[in-house]
Amino acid sequence: MIPVRILGTASVLPERRVTTRELGEALGRNPSAIEHKTGIRARHWSPPGTSMAELGAQALRGALAAAGLDARNLRRILFVSSTGGDVLIPATANRVAAALGLAGTCDAFDLNNACMGFVSAFDVASRSVATGLGPVAIVVVELGSRIISVEEPRPYLVFGDAAAAAIVGTARDGEGVLGAAFGNDGTQPSDVWMAHPLVTRTAERVRFEFSNQHIAEVAIEALKTATRAVLEQACLSLAEVEWVLPHQPNGAMLRLITEALGVDPARIVPVVEEVGSVGAASIPISLDRLLRTRTVRAGARLLMVGVGAGVSHGAVLYRVGG
Amino acid sequence: MIPVRILGTASVLPERRVTTRELGEALGRNPSAIEHKTGIRARHWSPPGTSMAELGAQALRGALAAAGLDARNLRRILFVSSTGGDVLIPATANRVAAALGLAGTCDAFDLNNACMGFVSAFDVASRSVATGLGPVAIVVVELGSRIISVEEPRPYLVFGDAAAAAIVGTARDGEGVLGAAFGNDGTQPSDVWMAHPLVTRTAERVRFEFSNQHIAEVAIEALKTATRAVLEQACLSLAEVEWVLPHQPNGAMLRLITEALGVDPARIVPVVEEVGSVGAASIPISLDRLLRTRTVRAGARLLMVGVGAGVSHGAVLYRVGG
Repeated sequence: MIPVRILGTASVLPERRVTTRELGEALGRNPSAIEHKTGIRARHWSPPGTSMAELGAQALRGALAAAGLDARNLRRILFVSSTGGDVLIPATANRVAAALGLAGTCDAFDLNNACMGFVSAFDVASRSVATGLGPVAIVVVELGSRIISVEEPRPYLVFGDAAAAAIVGTARDGEGVLGAAFGNDGTQPSDVWMAHPLVTRTAERVRFEFSNQHIAEVAIEALKTATRAVLEQACLSLAEVEWVLPHQPNGAMLRLITEALGVDPARIVPVVEEVGSVGAASIPISLDRLLRTRTVRAGARLLMVGVGAGVSHGAVLYRVGG
Repeated sequence: MIPVRILGTASVLPERRVTTRELGEALGRNPSAIEHKTGIRARHWSPPGTSMAELGAQALRGALAAAGLDARNLRRILFVSSTGGDVLIPATANRVAAALGLAGTCDAFDLNNACMGFVSAFDVASRSVATGLGPVAIVVVELGSRIISVEEPRPYLVFGDAAAAAIVGTARDGEGVLGAAFGNDGTQPSDVWMAHPLVTRTAERVRFEFSNQHIAEVAIEALKTATRAVLEQACLSLAEVEWVLPHQPNGAMLRLITEALGVDPARIVPVVEEVGSVGAASIPISLDRLLRTRTVRAGARLLMVGVGAGVSHGAVLYRVGG
């Protein structure tokens, strides 16, 4: 076991709530059919020019409050986003630190692994803490609204904006990471991809390369592989895991994932219906909802299992302390 | 001590060597004066459209050969670059893994911390290995040539392209990281910065915000802070450190840094004169040169100390094994 404790979490949605009804009507399409197909009723979009560092700092302030921690106690801030931050240089993590008034007390860098970013960062955070560098804050900001266009309706109808934060620190007795398993297969073409405008010198947006069915099949296979690997590591069965927090690309896929993993839906914390597809923010938002709205008993096991473009997959199995 | 071993390193320069003489003549400026001012005689530029994943994979193959390791033994690949990779989604690390033919055996994600990226990644790698997830490969690719323009001569005359790789694995007796210290100050405006073309919707390039003198002062202060912090952690003095590998932004600054730290120039491995300003690739290239061209005795201590836009700084003090 890697001894660590989730000290606090928080999530932030931009003020403007955009319903699928609104978008459907604007596109001249049947809103109910879109809602049924995507399993998304609403998402939040931030105004153009929104600072990811500011939104991330807002989430981090919430997580610090939940943890009862002063920002100056943080030793490392990991900023996670799928599409780069506010600028290319410097790392946006520096600006998150600056927004909290930190100068000299804390390390900060950016991490990108598409929708897998939070699970990757959680692993980096827990290994940092366990080897003496903690507490570590993970700050995820996804501004899906800046990478979509009405001309490509599939991403346009699902992507949302969100920020989430989690702070990982020193464990109390019996708590920590029971298993962490990661893998990737870059030999497959990526289902979801986005060119770099620095390379192409044109405005770019996210693209879905394959059918929804193909994307779902690849994602489910990857999630099953990660789940199997982490349970083997911990010598546990899925029945012994109280809470399962999978990546939630859309509502329809969340249902398929729940079925494919064979999880009782009561052990899942659905958020996608109200936040849309929010990339790496999906798992930490559902983690935050879990800790804020459910009764999580001492000793409960919690599985975070992700998949992302790459194809990249991974899982962290965490045991809640007393 | 965090017990780890540097298993192998390598570095790669694109074929085309561009001399300062050439650039000076093309700009109608005195080449000798530029050489004297920058301390750079040549840099390498890759052709437009160069794949960072391919260049990185080439460096990684070299490091695997030096380590006598099969790529399938790697457990994690960290891809480091200051400006994002080949695409925004997925993480380019996946494509490095794919270029090596890996499917399912290895984790992979991207890390960005401007010129500090390699030192940050080395820390992540060593904490991963020490907690059971290794060997870890760090692959740095900087394509400076894609972020400069002849209209802005200061960056144009110093930036180069390069790739470097290092593999960190299980320690033998007495080897590992004696200290690792990181800090950042995002409350200062960044000396070097680059907007994100995804945000600005225009072609972007790197910008130097302040005078060379101001940049040098900030960098030297940060490097001194990091050096002091890591030596304190390890209860050592700089005189007890055999090899010092500082970030090398340009030749003139390398001289100032060497003086300011009070290091005997014989304990430095200069590379900037022949490779130019190569961001996060600067330290791993000099590490590679050190291990390939100098006699490094068993038990020698090696200080990697970096600074980058942010302002971000950090140092890792490593003890070489037998």
